[in-house]
Amino acid sequence: MESNLTNLFLAKRTKHIRSSLIREILKITVKDSEFLSFAGGLPNPNLIERELLQKATEKTLISSAESALQYGDSTGVSELKQLILDTFVGMEGCDTNSICITHGSQQGLDILGKLFMEEDTNVLLEDPVYLGALQAFSPYQPKFFSLALEADGPSLSKLREILSSRRIHCFYTNPSYQNPSTITWTVEKRIAVAELLDEYEVILFEDEAYQFLDFSGTVYPSIASFRKNKDLTFVLGSFSKIISPGFRLGWVVVPNVYLEMFTRIKQGNDLNSNQFSQIVLLNLLSRFDFKEHCSKIQSYYHKQKQHLVDCLARYLPEVRFQNPQGGMFLWVEYPNVSEKEMMQHLMEKKVVMVPGNEFRLLDSDSAYFRMNFSFLQTVDMEEGVKRIASVYRDIIT
Amino acid sequence: MESNLTNLFLAKRTKHIRSSLIREILKITVKDSEFLSFAGGLPNPNLIERELLQKATEKTLISSAESALQYGDSTGVSELKQLILDTFVGMEGCDTNSICITHGSQQGLDILGKLFMEEDTNVLLEDPVYLGALQAFSPYQPKFFSLALEADGPSLSKLREILSSRRIHCFYTNPSYQNPSTITWTVEKRIAVAELLDEYEVILFEDEAYQFLDFSGTVYPSIASFRKNKDLTFVLGSFSKIISPGFRLGWVVVPNVYLEMFTRIKQGNDLNSNQFSQIVLLNLLSRFDFKEHCSKIQSYYHKQKQHLVDCLARYLPEVRFQNPQGGMFLWVEYPNVSEKEMMQHLMEKKVVMVPGNEFRLLDSDSAYFRMNFSFLQTVDMEEGVKRIASVYRDIIT
Repeated sequence: MESNLTNLFLAKRTKHIRSSLIREILKITVKDSEFLSFAGGLPNPNLIERELLQKATEKTLISSAESALQYGDSTGVSELKQLILDTFVGMEGCDTNSICITHGSQQGLDILGKLFMEEDTNVLLEDPVYLGALQAFSPYQPKFFSLALEADGPSLSKLREILSSRRIHCFYTNPSYQNPSTITWTVEKRIAVAELLDEYEVILFEDEAYQFLDFSGTVYPSIASFRKNKDLTFVLGSFSKIISPGFRLGWVVVPNVYLEMFTRIKQGNDLNSNQFSQIVLLNLLSRFDFKEHCSKIQSYYHKQKQHLVDCLARYLPEVRFQNPQGGMFLWVEYPNVSEKEMMQHLMEKKVVMVPGNEFRLLDSDSAYFRMNFSFLQTVDMEEGVKRIASVYRDIIT
Repeated sequence: MESNLTNLFLAKRTKHIRSSLIREILKITVKDSEFLSFAGGLPNPNLIERELLQKATEKTLISSAESALQYGDSTGVSELKQLILDTFVGMEGCDTNSICITHGSQQGLDILGKLFMEEDTNVLLEDPVYLGALQAFSPYQPKFFSLALEADGPSLSKLREILSSRRIHCFYTNPSYQNPSTITWTVEKRIAVAELLDEYEVILFEDEAYQFLDFSGTVYPSIASFRKNKDLTFVLGSFSKIISPGFRLGWVVVPNVYLEMFTRIKQGNDLNSNQFSQIVLLNLLSRFDFKEHCSKIQSYYHKQKQHLVDCLARYLPEVRFQNPQGGMFLWVEYPNVSEKEMMQHLMEKKVVMVPGNEFRLLDSDSAYFRMNFSFLQTVDMEEGVKRIASVYRDIIT
């Protein structure tokens, strides 16, 4: 921001708005094809059969053009809502009206921020936390609190300690293959946390973007499904990781009591989600075997993960990580370096990963990097790890 | 909202969030095909050649699937930004980087609200005003002020009076075939208002959604183009009225000094706009004659308007309106009735229009209705006007 006049006009909330290094990196790597990027959370776009997609768009323009090319219901196309309910939301007490289709689950986070957060709202986040949630919530200026994660989910004693020491209004979590830590909560922890949230009357925002990316096909029950107070649970889902982020479609399971206000906010944000993409997606999903498609993604990502694990074992035996059984990332600790120093040299060598502090409220001294394994071809992955290893070795020796 | 617990959690801003009767009406008329609706701002979806669109989607999936099915730049696909700049934005001092593609221009309004508006922000609106702008801005709780419109734009003396009596930060206007009043500013008023806004250092949000819907093809120069202080001008455009609202794509011309913050907000809102639709649209626009397409829309809408004007002259000679030379609406005053009473009976007769007070900060006693002429077939339009006439005559006699 250059002039005083310019600053004069900005709303105070803009001081709290975070940038995203990931988006900056994405811009650079899109422009320079020599960059090898472990940075994005990019699914592999080749896992969707083009022919099926072609047929789905054809059918959309032949049979449903009038609605596909028009404004629509702010909560989404009802047939797609029904399909989401039947296929992806295994939760009692919901019906089609509970589903609101959003412009990616990121928009769901923004709407929840607008609906619930202001200066005296206490919001509990995981440490580390999905960066996009920080970006969505920060403009509403709530107070953030952090909950450290253990290998199988949050520490229950720490959670109780936080909940009993102050009024926490909302808890945002990403309990399956968390972005970035890859930590997945056990069913026991889901049940126990649901009970604690009921006891302390906390609103849950459960982001299940990676729910269907378990390599063995396991789908963990949502925390929300164990809550007694369903009025205080929102579950977010996304087509970005299982179909394609190009359609920018996700959904939120919204409790009845908040439905009207959620819908009004959605209207003010963008009137309604993209009708054309909603109907293409509906036609695509109606003509293909979702379970088979998931297995294909899962086994492909499994192989990719194993390849990255092997490359790290071979070229960077010093690094540490929890070997995840799903998702798209490794969360890797690099001993005896700083994230900042690593980043500078990585950029010079044209290889990128996301530094861990991007995902934290308070910087950590340990150097962590989030490494995506879903996007790069195996040969590029190996070359990328070699470049990282040479940077790392230059620094520590 | 039912329980105290539920109310406890809502952010205070939700008290300011407006519903939209238009969206409610849209829901009813979509479900019951016997309704004849003059309510929506619905373009006619049959004006786009399906075959061209089919080819554009095919090309997208054959040549650009990798980017169409992936995340993308938060400001939009650069080739589409270039095309928008070249074809739709006739303004000096802009380059491709000035264009930010949004999820409809409605999202542009939300981002501008988030960027500039808070409790002590004074925002000047036209009276009547585009309802979507009220919905977008209200959650940020600015103070609204109203500027009455004359037949050729705002009264300059009243504008000066408002600007000199208090610090106005932002002025939102829709100067070409305004929704709902259909008023179009003359070039002289555009120049004079640009000078006043420069003098009082006011940010201009110029919403040019109907810019290309003049029946004779006239495109008025933007107010922004006459401003000296380009850092304080944002121009919003939309593909909804000229191509299709189904793609939910619009754009904002953003001054350089605000570009970074605007982009960050866009990221927090939804990461990026729909890549698939952006590339389909790019492929569509690259292979068709936009001017010819516009002429087609313009002459079709012209005929439609004339038909509605004729029907009103025949069945409802009492009503008054300014006969517009563009756009999609008539703004019709119904003497000696109240909007509320009319609405009740209209719903019973299965015909709808939008009551004028939806577009006002303070209710007016005169009964105005916004009547759309772009969507209904001529025979339905006549039947609709007959139904309205019978309701009106029942009330006044």
